[in-house]
Amino acid sequence: MVKNAVYAQSGGVTSVINGSAYGVIKQCFSSQKIGKIFVGINGINGLINDNLLNMDEQDLKEIDLLRSTPSGAFGSCRKKLYYENEEDFIKLFNTLKKHNIGYFFYNGGNDSMDTALKIHDYAIKNGYDLKVMGIPKTIDNDLYGTDHTPGYGSSAKYIATSIMETSLDTRSMSFDSTKVFVLETMGRHAGWLAGAASLSNLNGNFGPHIILMPEVIFDENKFLSIVENTVLKNNYCSIVVSEGIKNKNGSFVSELDNIDEFGNKQLGGAGNFISNIISLKLKLKTHTAIPDYLQRSAGHLASFVDMNEAELCGSMAVNYAINGNSGYMVSIVRESDDPYYVTYDIVELEKVANNTKYVPKDYISSDGFYVTENFINYAKPLIQGSVQPRFENGLPKYSKFHINE
Amino acid sequence: MVKNAVYAQSGGVTSVINGSAYGVIKQCFSSQKIGKIFVGINGINGLINDNLLNMDEQDLKEIDLLRSTPSGAFGSCRKKLYYENEEDFIKLFNTLKKHNIGYFFYNGGNDSMDTALKIHDYAIKNGYDLKVMGIPKTIDNDLYGTDHTPGYGSSAKYIATSIMETSLDTRSMSFDSTKVFVLETMGRHAGWLAGAASLSNLNGNFGPHIILMPEVIFDENKFLSIVENTVLKNNYCSIVVSEGIKNKNGSFVSELDNIDEFGNKQLGGAGNFISNIISLKLKLKTHTAIPDYLQRSAGHLASFVDMNEAELCGSMAVNYAINGNSGYMVSIVRESDDPYYVTYDIVELEKVANNTKYVPKDYISSDGFYVTENFINYAKPLIQGSVQPRFENGLPKYSKFHINE
Repeated sequence: MVKNAVYAQSGGVTSVINGSAYGVIKQCFSSQKIGKIFVGINGINGLINDNLLNMDEQDLKEIDLLRSTPSGAFGSCRKKLYYENEEDFIKLFNTLKKHNIGYFFYNGGNDSMDTALKIHDYAIKNGYDLKVMGIPKTIDNDLYGTDHTPGYGSSAKYIATSIMETSLDTRSMSFDSTKVFVLETMGRHAGWLAGAASLSNLNGNFGPHIILMPEVIFDENKFLSIVENTVLKNNYCSIVVSEGIKNKNGSFVSELDNIDEFGNKQLGGAGNFISNIISLKLKLKTHTAIPDYLQRSAGHLASFVDMNEAELCGSMAVNYAINGNSGYMVSIVRESDDPYYVTYDIVELEKVANNTKYVPKDYISSDGFYVTENFINYAKPLIQGSVQPRFENGLPKYSKFHINE
Repeated sequence: MVKNAVYAQSGGVTSVINGSAYGVIKQCFSSQKIGKIFVGINGINGLINDNLLNMDEQDLKEIDLLRSTPSGAFGSCRKKLYYENEEDFIKLFNTLKKHNIGYFFYNGGNDSMDTALKIHDYAIKNGYDLKVMGIPKTIDNDLYGTDHTPGYGSSAKYIATSIMETSLDTRSMSFDSTKVFVLETMGRHAGWLAGAASLSNLNGNFGPHIILMPEVIFDENKFLSIVENTVLKNNYCSIVVSEGIKNKNGSFVSELDNIDEFGNKQLGGAGNFISNIISLKLKLKTHTAIPDYLQRSAGHLASFVDMNEAELCGSMAVNYAINGNSGYMVSIVRESDDPYYVTYDIVELEKVANNTKYVPKDYISSDGFYVTENFINYAKPLIQGSVQPRFENGLPKYSKFHINE
């Protein structure tokens, strides 16, 4: 008997995670081996609480819009599974049984692959026939076992474009006003997003001049001296800092007590920390931008390569599951940088779940304040091409499924 | 004898100020009545210090790229003129004489129109034949004497798109994580930029749910109760706040002592203030974005209407000056909202220089936490159409003149 499938989204969302949803749905629609395709609302919460959307009953126009819609159109979650809380498993498997589900596709990062692995193991232990496949996703790009993750390329494109545009702005203002601009990126553990800012310098060398990544211990004196020299040379300095940079004691600088020029204690992120020490110690006028969610939801500036790979990771997951695989995540294998060419493979969820992929040493410049050609060769292909969302009223028109309203 | 012309940029830059530069340069190139067109580097600093670029000597490809290049390609300034400092005037007029300049075009906001007016007056007093024309520019849209200012439409489009995308993101995360998202916009005196976020709701009603503008005294209790109700109803709440909101004592909230949930004093902008009171008093998880310069330099998301009007304001300034006008700013006159149709006129610099245009009462909802249909009808035409910059390496390719390097 043909089994049904369920797909769900998990963790921080991206500009292209709905592209993976589209890939899964489309592939399930066209497969003879899969019956219905359901989507869990709010990640595994939807599976635990039997809150599923049957894609057969949805407007095809909305499903089509998914490809260019950023964020998690079906709701995401931060929920984790623990063996001690067996009730969650029992409820989740009751939902699977009720809807005759034999395929489970979970779209997320590190934590989500741990969840998928636990569901895979629980199914085996309890003799429930379930094919579990993970679909990679995270703007942080720190997932082990895949050359890169869908979501990263679009955020990289957003960050590189944004630092180019704000560097131009700062350059304009630098004669008698702002001298230093600081952009804070996400990336608590790894510097992939901050490093991507370097791509901006491929077109015009406007900036950034300095990139601070969590892989490098923050050296304040060395940093301030580079800022000072950059301003002397260019009249301005453009800086990208990852939220996760740490000092030599291993503390996040964003958690340090921070005294501003008026003697007031100032808390806040790494971006504000960096701006404050520059105004305090170098007496230079700074501006700081914290794009926060903007960098992971900018569907209007998504990368075509990224969107395309997100969709393919979704449809490949379905193919692998149909062929009997379970307990794996789809992975992207890079065959060549230039011309850029990738193939797809699978990697054990177990290997992905408890690992972090840091920026390798040879991707970071020897002084620790920028990236090398290796980084640029790696990241550049991932931001190529544009996905233009449909525009209405001068603004993007995105997909809307009713989830929590 | 045919006189030469000079153009310069001043104040905070925009996504389309270079469009006005292009309009001026193109019109001067094609006019028989104007000889050379110079550009002052770093605003009037370039005129005072005889630091001009002769456009005849520039690469035409770079001039062409100006139309889609955000920021001030020739350097801007914050410098003001004071009659007490006559040396600035003397040096400036020496530069004008030296280069046989009879036309001065100054592109900026309130302060810049004051500068243009002083140069106009000084020329008359000293019998120097100079036609002075102001070209409007400010993302804040608070300039008197024009229906709106070039630069506003593109920032409005950026803000509306960004709040749509981040609202979608927050909606995704809201089941068991982030409940409230706060976006801080520029606009120290007027709520035009914050209000523009409302346009996002034309496509899908994802947010924002609340807009806080400087024209309305911030009422914390009323605000928190609306946030709470919105979260109860939608499961999330998306908020846009202008950097310039004030409490009933007339203080900027961004300057208030702000105690976070750990009892630490927290300074910073209005966005962080709003997030902090929400986490402290409502115990809801928040995220905050501070786009800062991103909102005024996002050439990749410029409005076609805005860019086109910026260019026309530049070329109209040249026409008005050739016809003998001096001491005026070009103004945009709206003839109709729908179909959108504008004409161009001139307004005395004197009237523009010491005035601020606030958001009118009937553009703000009666509870003070959103805008009315009048606002939407006003702002909607200004964000229509897209300007696509040229892309290379997956990123915009912008113009680069050598200014301070």
